[in-house]
Amino acid sequence: MVITFLSDFGLADDFVGTCHGVIKRIAPETDVIDITHGIEPQSVLQGALVLASTLPYMPEGVHMAVVDPDVGSPRRALVLRTDDDRLLVGPDNGLLVPAAERLGGVIAAYEITNREYALDPVSATFHGRDIFAPAAAHLANGVAAAELGPPLDAGTLVRLEIPQAEVGERRIRATCLYVDRFGNIQLNVHADQLAPLGIVPGRQIEVELAMDRFYALAARTFAEARTGDIILYEDAYRNIALAISRGNAAETFGVRAGMEVRLRVQSE
Amino acid sequence: MVITFLSDFGLADDFVGTCHGVIKRIAPETDVIDITHGIEPQSVLQGALVLASTLPYMPEGVHMAVVDPDVGSPRRALVLRTDDDRLLVGPDNGLLVPAAERLGGVIAAYEITNREYALDPVSATFHGRDIFAPAAAHLANGVAAAELGPPLDAGTLVRLEIPQAEVGERRIRATCLYVDRFGNIQLNVHADQLAPLGIVPGRQIEVELAMDRFYALAARTFAEARTGDIILYEDAYRNIALAISRGNAAETFGVRAGMEVRLRVQSE
Amino acid sequence: MVITFLSDFGLADDFVGTCHGVIKRIAPETDVIDITHGIEPQSVLQGALVLASTLPYMPEGVHMAVVDPDVGSPRRALVLRTDDDRLLVGPDNGLLVPAAERLGGVIAAYEITNREYALDPVSATFHGRDIFAPAAAHLANGVAAAELGPPLDAGTLVRLEIPQAEVGERRIRATCLYVDRFGNIQLNVHADQLAPLGIVPGRQIEVELAMDRFYALAARTFAEARTGDIILYEDAYRNIALAISRGNAAETFGVRAGMEVRLRVQSE
Repeated sequence: MVITFLSDFGLADDFVGTCHGVIKRIAPETDVIDITHGIEPQSVLQGALVLASTLPYMPEGVHMAVVDPDVGSPRRALVLRTDDDRLLVGPDNGLLVPAAERLGGVIAAYEITNREYALDPVSATFHGRDIFAPAAAHLANGVAAAELGPPLDAGTLVRLEIPQAEVGERRIRATCLYVDRFGNIQLNVHADQLAPLGIVPGRQIEVELAMDRFYALAARTFAEARTGDIILYEDAYRNIALAISRGNAAETFGVRAGMEVRLRVQSE
Repeated sequence: MVITFLSDFGLADDFVGTCHGVIKRIAPETDVIDITHGIEPQSVLQGALVLASTLPYMPEGVHMAVVDPDVGSPRRALVLRTDDDRLLVGPDNGLLVPAAERLGGVIAAYEITNREYALDPVSATFHGRDIFAPAAAHLANGVAAAELGPPLDAGTLVRLEIPQAEVGERRIRATCLYVDRFGNIQLNVHADQLAPLGIVPGRQIEVELAMDRFYALAARTFAEARTGDIILYEDAYRNIALAISRGNAAETFGVRAGMEVRLRVQSE
Repeated sequence: MVITFLSDFGLADDFVGTCHGVIKRIAPETDVIDITHGIEPQSVLQGALVLASTLPYMPEGVHMAVVDPDVGSPRRALVLRTDDDRLLVGPDNGLLVPAAERLGGVIAAYEITNREYALDPVSATFHGRDIFAPAAAHLANGVAAAELGPPLDAGTLVRLEIPQAEVGERRIRATCLYVDRFGNIQLNVHADQLAPLGIVPGRQIEVELAMDRFYALAARTFAEARTGDIILYEDAYRNIALAISRGNAAETFGVRAGMEVRLRVQSE
């Protein structure tokens, strides 16, 4: 059985390694795949979107995700079962739901409350180690999700508000979902939404954001742009982002998550 | 059999990957768990303390640690057997001893001298690859520790001087053990030493260090502090540290490892 | 079967984790060893040299490497079989050839064209996930290399120009191959080329590069140098580099890959 693991822990500390140790003590035969631990600290939205994008590439198994700014508060700990029989483990803060919906939806949900499947004691700040890793490992061992705690009504799960882009004939009013480590501005726009507007590689697009208005080049790859070019590109998951080739777009334009970004094409 | 691996190698280079390769050539069935490779370069004390904190969470096995500023000098290479039958592998510079003591103490010690269990040639600068990884892999394969070299008197092992905090009725004279990557100041104080002084979450504590004197808030989690707050918190291993919420405490106060930190509570 | 994996993807994003997922879906029993993902972005030469240095330490298997600035262009995707029966997988930009030559030379080469062994669809920017990882996984499963596509004439493979040092009686005219993350200047000089000139630890060497001329100390290890010393040292793969102890040599001297570096010893 495979456990995948995504978090905002980074790799400078022992947090990730300690969770691996906890898993392997309980489930020695399990294979752990680290999706990434580079989610921006406490960015639940980025964690949720990366999890939803990457899980389809992962073997079916137990999928643990920990981006948990409210650790130590009474937020619930969850196991979700999806339609394709994967088990998602993590905090009830919206982190797991987009991935579950991408994989056919939540078929069953459980709150992790049974301390027999947690470490003892449970710390106030490191539920990755004390609750989620042990839960994931026991699930990988074949313990039933219902053993970990009572079923939950899926309607009560915390959901993230993921802003939807407004797409017109020549305009898109989008939102910055998150800024990645390179300053690229991830938009809530999918490649399929651009094509009807005639936004194809090589086209100039007028962009309005914060205090700035400028033109960006629709590019298929970074290789098509020169250093300093502002480009609108489709990433490998077919999401649209705004970048400066070898520069930092978010810093240059003063953009943060949640800000509006307007795109406009001229009539031809 | 599991091998755990802790070092100050970082992940930017191939050092860690090359050690994995060496281990897998010798012991293909071994599972390697990376505890962390983010120990501050050459900080034997930080490496020793992180190893001691994390090994209890790791499966029993062979535990290799390499923070080795004196590589190439005549410092000895060690295997230590602990009371709970773990084998610790690393340089004789104090790195392994606190972990061994935490796990019941050193039952037997051996110097690694047998070149049959090393790579050939042995380089001057990368004993992780040439000596420690092969030794760990052969031990994981079931080679007896005594095969690697002669037994040592445990009394001759190099030991780190870990300064002890002085705890009074209303004061603690502590020392900064190390500064972590976020500038948090790790003290030689355990959570159990604070409680008798009435230092509980929410309490203000007077702090004196270097040229500064200020108040810190005892906090259970970072979530309880606002940006810029100076807090005294208990980490997930129950050690006490001083931090600035979303800031860099060590830089702000000019603190380095070894400096004195005084804590004082007012009478109520 | 083992797959090793080297790239310039870094670990901040999910690129590496997603490739692991793709491999494990196809070849669940495979063990993946990450050599490093810290190659400087798009530095094919650095990737090629690190791959050639490290593969001898890796178990025989499938060796995937992705440093691929021309992804999305018509550059070919390759499988190379070496004399010692390893399979190297990656782009046809010179990345694989030095390693293959180090391992006895290219015995057979194939272009990966068979889309049955790729993901569907293949993106424009992430062939690591869509082409190379699936190819490596199928090879690890025992699929014949010839199944992946037609044989190629090894003479048509793209080769890197690796500049050769000119070695005289008292002088070496070298070239900076790449600058590593610490600003160390990697030269195209092997330790065996220094000895005949009498360059031994402790010797002063005159160095001329860019606009500067200065003396460096030949040192066996960094431990032999003081902070700020300019040293010429032999790394653990016996390659020669120029460094400033605890400083950044490339920045200090304004050196970039491709620049000439002259070394000269005085007659004794």
